[in-house]
Amino acid sequence: MSIVAYIAVVGPGETAARDAIGDATEIGTLIARRGWITLTGGRRAGVMAAAAAGARAAGGLAIGLLPGNDRSDASPDLSAALSTGLGEARNAVLVTAADAVVACGINPGTVSEISLAVRANKPTVLVKPSPSAAEFLASIADGAPFQVVDTPAEALDWLVARMIAAHH
Amino acid sequence: MSIVAYIAVVGPGETAARDAIGDATEIGTLIARRGWITLTGGRRAGVMAAAAAGARAAGGLAIGLLPGNDRSDASPDLSAALSTGLGEARNAVLVTAADAVVACGINPGTVSEISLAVRANKPTVLVKPSPSAAEFLASIADGAPFQVVDTPAEALDWLVARMIAAHH
Amino acid sequence: MSIVAYIAVVGPGETAARDAIGDATEIGTLIARRGWITLTGGRRAGVMAAAAAGARAAGGLAIGLLPGNDRSDASPDLSAALSTGLGEARNAVLVTAADAVVACGINPGTVSEISLAVRANKPTVLVKPSPSAAEFLASIADGAPFQVVDTPAEALDWLVARMIAAHH
Amino acid sequence: MSIVAYIAVVGPGETAARDAIGDATEIGTLIARRGWITLTGGRRAGVMAAAAAGARAAGGLAIGLLPGNDRSDASPDLSAALSTGLGEARNAVLVTAADAVVACGINPGTVSEISLAVRANKPTVLVKPSPSAAEFLASIADGAPFQVVDTPAEALDWLVARMIAAHH
Repeated sequence: MSIVAYIAVVGPGETAARDAIGDATEIGTLIARRGWITLTGGRRAGVMAAAAAGARAAGGLAIGLLPGNDRSDASPDLSAALSTGLGEARNAVLVTAADAVVACGINPGTVSEISLAVRANKPTVLVKPSPSAAEFLASIADGAPFQVVDTPAEALDWLVARMIAAHH
Repeated sequence: MSIVAYIAVVGPGETAARDAIGDATEIGTLIARRGWITLTGGRRAGVMAAAAAGARAAGGLAIGLLPGNDRSDASPDLSAALSTGLGEARNAVLVTAADAVVACGINPGTVSEISLAVRANKPTVLVKPSPSAAEFLASIADGAPFQVVDTPAEALDWLVARMIAAHH
Repeated sequence: MSIVAYIAVVGPGETAARDAIGDATEIGTLIARRGWITLTGGRRAGVMAAAAAGARAAGGLAIGLLPGNDRSDASPDLSAALSTGLGEARNAVLVTAADAVVACGINPGTVSEISLAVRANKPTVLVKPSPSAAEFLASIADGAPFQVVDTPAEALDWLVARMIAAHH
Repeated sequence: MSIVAYIAVVGPGETAARDAIGDATEIGTLIARRGWITLTGGRRAGVMAAAAAGARAAGGLAIGLLPGNDRSDASPDLSAALSTGLGEARNAVLVTAADAVVACGINPGTVSEISLAVRANKPTVLVKPSPSAAEFLASIADGAPFQVVDTPAEALDWLVARMIAAHH
């Protein structure tokens, strides 16, 4: 039996580090190869754009949830870009729509998504966070499934195990 | 040049009339044949489910925006089902994400979507509405592009003309 | 025992008719005199502004839910103006926060609020609607408590009876 | 000239520490004494309930934004309790409605509010955070006005200076 999971790939936009962009691209590809769906914040920048590009390159579905009222700043690699008109409340919708969250890099928007994910008890994995981010976010995760990894492949392996566990 | 348009197909769920379900199925198919994206309220019922099934039958993309926090009541024919957790506020998101709205049948939720669509000046087409619905909703449409039609094919023809006009 | 009810007073903004503005002012006053709370769409225009002014004149609480991100266009008579940043999705929040809805005049935004209210089975009263609005909106109200009245006093009498009924 | 500011007081609910509850009560009182408005997450628990009680004790206005569809779990000390029906997206609305945010204690929901506040460049003050919370959240605040304090009085002094600065 195959399980379709929806994975939100979150991280900085314009200020994303090169490393985070490379990781997000690879994660989008790995999600797509499993037949899973990539969700992003939709914009044509940084981690959001990279995850969509990675998913597309592997023939997968990538759906973006934009904060604004139109698609003018949507990533061109999305299968579908949905303008929510909700502003920053779209972060909560992105997390609600996802079964799990992967973060590549950190900024305030990313932290809001990670914290809402652990609050909702959704598996949350951080790729190469700083020591202080890893320590603090682990401390608030409490009982939620939470992991820090060094590579996209480890992130996916961990998520696959969580998704399988959730269906048993 | 091809334009990708996002069309929300709205209408009753469990209480949808057989006619509305047939029309929604055909509209989903026609949207898909143009390479456009079908948006629905996501649930496995009535017009929402029919539009997704029609789109899928023609190999198109159908995306549903669910009011709740999980996908338990999602239509099985959706390409992606997004739980928004927003309750009825998801109707506003559905309209914001859409370039145009087609209504097959009427209930209070549908009326909220039609009214938000005309408020946002988005092309809105009603398939076989009752005379009182047609008269009243036309009266509030004011300057917004608004049309009443008898068949799915007419709905699509009208939408195609509107979408082309919007890009010139 | 006293019951505090939250009543949303909805209607057009800049395009409100003089009659609707007068009715909304009186309704705000009548809500305040009962010790109830007036909710509005928050803007400094039309029915929203009038209901807040009426509530304030009688020493009542009036709270506005604005669509935007700041209070620059808030009615000055509100006890509190809350920027939601949700755009038109704030209409759904306004209805969810209310126990009942009174409409003075009609435009698309108002119709979205009336339809969401009857969908949520909340008492909904229209003051002096046009015959076509009254007929159509009554037709979608289905089993929801729905009334058409000629005066603000009748609107309040009907709401008081509904609120008392709801607490027995 | 007097400036009315809206201050969101955020922190844990059922799991709030005694200290955080005491601080939130005092902060609600200090906000009220300035004639400002206290905003909370609305529930009858922890920091939310304490801030409302403190504001009420000083005759101030306290408004709660609840995640659910009714007021059954609202704090009894609120001037008004607004059911948003938005689930966790109400955190974003709470921050948008506020001019500044004070956090007493930390949990995932609180972190989502702090991070959205610094993202929106709103003054954000943490009362007695743990060293790791203080360090990490300061690191994401970037250019946003951000402060760590030991007492409610210091929190208010800092906020007053920020609000005055914002109006000059």
